[in-house]
Amino acid sequence: MSHSNEVPSAASPAAAPEVTFGTSPERYRHWRLDVDGPVATLTLDIDEAGGIVPGYELKMNSYDLGVDIELYDATQRLRFEHPGVRAIVVTSGKDRNFCAGANIRMLAQSSHPWKVNFCKFTNETRNGIEDATANSGQTWIAAVNGTAAGGGYELALACERILLVDDNSSAVSLPEVPLLGVLPGTGGLTRVIDKRKVRKDRADVFATRPEGIRGKQAVEWKLVDETIPKRVWDETVAERAVQAAEGSSRPVDVPGISLRPLEPEGYHYRHVRADLDRERGLVEITVLGPEGGVPESLDRVHELGDEFWPLAMTRELDDLILRLRANELELGTWIFRTKGAVEDTLAFERLIEEHSKDDWLVNEIRHYFKRVLKRLDVTSRSLIALIEPGSCFAGALLELALACDRQYMLDGTLDEAGSEQGDEAQIMLSASNFDTFPMANGLARLESRFYGDGDHLAKLRQETDRRIGAREALELGLVTDGPDEIDWADEIRIMLEERTSLSPDALTGMEANHRFVGPETMESRIFSRLTAWQNWIFVRPNASGPDGALRRYGTGTRADFDRTRV
Amino acid sequence: MSHSNEVPSAASPAAAPEVTFGTSPERYRHWRLDVDGPVATLTLDIDEAGGIVPGYELKMNSYDLGVDIELYDATQRLRFEHPGVRAIVVTSGKDRNFCAGANIRMLAQSSHPWKVNFCKFTNETRNGIEDATANSGQTWIAAVNGTAAGGGYELALACERILLVDDNSSAVSLPEVPLLGVLPGTGGLTRVIDKRKVRKDRADVFATRPEGIRGKQAVEWKLVDETIPKRVWDETVAERAVQAAEGSSRPVDVPGISLRPLEPEGYHYRHVRADLDRERGLVEITVLGPEGGVPESLDRVHELGDEFWPLAMTRELDDLILRLRANELELGTWIFRTKGAVEDTLAFERLIEEHSKDDWLVNEIRHYFKRVLKRLDVTSRSLIALIEPGSCFAGALLELALACDRQYMLDGTLDEAGSEQGDEAQIMLSASNFDTFPMANGLARLESRFYGDGDHLAKLRQETDRRIGAREALELGLVTDGPDEIDWADEIRIMLEERTSLSPDALTGMEANHRFVGPETMESRIFSRLTAWQNWIFVRPNASGPDGALRRYGTGTRADFDRTRV
Repeated sequence: MSHSNEVPSAASPAAAPEVTFGTSPERYRHWRLDVDGPVATLTLDIDEAGGIVPGYELKMNSYDLGVDIELYDATQRLRFEHPGVRAIVVTSGKDRNFCAGANIRMLAQSSHPWKVNFCKFTNETRNGIEDATANSGQTWIAAVNGTAAGGGYELALACERILLVDDNSSAVSLPEVPLLGVLPGTGGLTRVIDKRKVRKDRADVFATRPEGIRGKQAVEWKLVDETIPKRVWDETVAERAVQAAEGSSRPVDVPGISLRPLEPEGYHYRHVRADLDRERGLVEITVLGPEGGVPESLDRVHELGDEFWPLAMTRELDDLILRLRANELELGTWIFRTKGAVEDTLAFERLIEEHSKDDWLVNEIRHYFKRVLKRLDVTSRSLIALIEPGSCFAGALLELALACDRQYMLDGTLDEAGSEQGDEAQIMLSASNFDTFPMANGLARLESRFYGDGDHLAKLRQETDRRIGAREALELGLVTDGPDEIDWADEIRIMLEERTSLSPDALTGMEANHRFVGPETMESRIFSRLTAWQNWIFVRPNASGPDGALRRYGTGTRADFDRTRV
Repeated sequence: MSHSNEVPSAASPAAAPEVTFGTSPERYRHWRLDVDGPVATLTLDIDEAGGIVPGYELKMNSYDLGVDIELYDATQRLRFEHPGVRAIVVTSGKDRNFCAGANIRMLAQSSHPWKVNFCKFTNETRNGIEDATANSGQTWIAAVNGTAAGGGYELALACERILLVDDNSSAVSLPEVPLLGVLPGTGGLTRVIDKRKVRKDRADVFATRPEGIRGKQAVEWKLVDETIPKRVWDETVAERAVQAAEGSSRPVDVPGISLRPLEPEGYHYRHVRADLDRERGLVEITVLGPEGGVPESLDRVHELGDEFWPLAMTRELDDLILRLRANELELGTWIFRTKGAVEDTLAFERLIEEHSKDDWLVNEIRHYFKRVLKRLDVTSRSLIALIEPGSCFAGALLELALACDRQYMLDGTLDEAGSEQGDEAQIMLSASNFDTFPMANGLARLESRFYGDGDHLAKLRQETDRRIGAREALELGLVTDGPDEIDWADEIRIMLEERTSLSPDALTGMEANHRFVGPETMESRIFSRLTAWQNWIFVRPNASGPDGALRRYGTGTRADFDRTRV
């Protein structure tokens, strides 16, 4: 991934630093995580010299991808390692400066793909913060103890409550439009109107006023929930955190589990493997089903912790998706296979279904897998599921196939060298395909697939928990095609050749449209409308050209705009 | 508007031909409109040499903006001049070729703004076709008597039913992604999944298969409603049209009204005037309220026809918006004023409210004004309402102000030279602000403005039909600011200077996000997600660069893609 001064420029993966996503609190350079009973405090205190790539200093508590990788790690550890935490206070370690948002020099020097990937990941993390409040009993509170500008205010917007210090200077602002000629990149415009329900004319004034809004007006306009005088700041923030913690469903006095480093070899993890085919522009991903039986008890699940297959597999898949998205930009098609026993996979899932309401860890695993599936939904790669003999696309793992743009299922057996399977490919539906892992639009993937066809969904509900072969899967509309063993290899080869010959941009736009049918939510709108507009604005000369606002910022010379409206 | 080979290029308005939108059936070069009792037939028979700008031939029944201007005119005349028409059959006058969609050479040679404006207008016309079916008892049927490719199939998708000739060759297709490296530009992807409810994996296959799908498979996949053998084509199409006409609410045996040419002087119409301020980058638009009282009877309304103020004003406003959007790209801010008597305006509106259910013409006027307001909602200009003494922002005209990004209301009187008004500015709410003119997202503009605040909406319902001054309007949240007469001129001047100094692209993206809060519909999704993605793809080198798919199409050389995914 390049970060040249040529914008937009294609990345040269070989020359760029490889991005990795694994970290842990003792290695954080920018955040401090303090846990005090039911309240955790996340303090942003950015190391100016700690940019993830060279070329800029992270002044004014501004962030780059590296800062957000730590934040993502913290959100995950809070959910898995700290079951007792019920409220999280996000605040700043700098004086009078909460967070200045994404670093502008970083944006100005970054390639288009880097900017887009960066925004996508930060969006996912902020959606994850809201998910923790909604589904995990962890309420996030922004304790804005200085000015929150741009992405700094957007971070606050992802929290359930926003407290702003009343010191006659600290303000919240979205200065991207007036100062940089781009949009706020992490949901700001959408959350201001959809979540905070700020009137659109006020949202317009706010998002064009570089100095932002503070004090009483910020409360009146609903941009923050309350302002708190500096002299009672600490105790009031603590009080709000305790209040937020009170209503939580989190357990008391139970130990968390440890999320240990994954340590893959290249892209080979324990339960997930990816093989890169640079010549054909493909990644072949195989998810391995569970080895051995399901744990005999919930206690055993807790004991296994991060070794419990559903969690271990989900973590690996998550890491793989993030690394491929960041580092392998030219591999535009991802092929998904699974390998394992259908029944074993479903046994694990039944345990999760059964206990996601009464066990905090099982609940976390369910929502984590849901979030990873959502990452796939917004991944700008063509996703193809190949369902072959020996695969285990059942229940939760079937969601992987349903998240794909197409599903091909072999009708017959594979007798190629290397295949030991005599049995035919089979898939299995379970209750979880109907309710457990909703997409960003609020629909299950099956509901999206059969949008508006309630009769067929009702019929499918009758077909759960039994093996479904290729011909029946085709009839039920669960797969795109079911070639027999004579046609399989050729059909798949030709399909992949055709796919990889198409315009990557057109595919990205097409897939982003097809994957989300029907209703929208704030989350889906952030990834659809807002992100799409930002994509366009990022490549326009008015933003990224040599005389554009992003490049001219801080030079003392104003941007020279082409005034043409389109 | 330029159509140079440099893409994307800024338009040079002075050098480009001015686009006008007025036409009538006897002047059509590309369409034939035949009315036979309750069934009208619109036959597309494109004159290859009739492009709206030089540089391409409209082969294969492919279209450009000029073709679509005629189609829009036909949709309007069918509603106003032909009240007896209950079904409209769209078909082709060419052998084995329904329509090949937007002309590719036209797209390849067009500037980015031209492409975007063209797509926006064609989208509005197709939404208007659906509006005729939903609200006007006119059901559109696509009689696809040859291959319908790209925009040709998208035109069919806008119809209520799609009939495809079964001749072993005619197919429907969306070849934009595989052949041109762009998206279908007029709602194709969205209508295929949201309206036709085609499964997403099939939609993916369909939209990447340049030859499309025909015959039984097209019906199975829900891409068309039925295929009809060639030998019974004519009678079956006629039968379907008669069936569609049967359920209609349209009146029988009543005369229509004439939509006569508007004949403005420049941008000065009879009830709507626009003054261009090129130096400041502004358009100042004034809508004049009705002169004289409301007609004493419905008969008189029909007698007045296109002279009836609400219709005359709406037509002028529609034409003005279209012309400014197409021809005045560098005037990025539109200022809206009204002038007239508040009570007179409301009197007209009461007549419309009262009779929109029982009189076809009044119903048409209501929905036409609704559609024109929707044009404003998707117009990529900053929209500012200035509410001054002597204005008549009441009821339906208040919608103009509510459609704006901001509303400023003078608290006091204007004593400047040229102003004769002694009275203060006042606005008036009416029932129509709550229900009559929904936006594309299905919400009234007041509902969008106070999204999620049902209590305030209920309160506002109590405040209808009385004069509201600036201070009260500010308290009720109906205006953004209410400067007094001392501050007014300076505040407005500074606000406009600030606005016009901002990046036009960032403003476009910001406004497109702020204007639509909450729920989405197929229509809003077409203008948000689909259009935004298309905007981005259009400016990418993979589509519009010298080696991009759009430029290389038909040269015999394949596009050379940068494979980087973003």
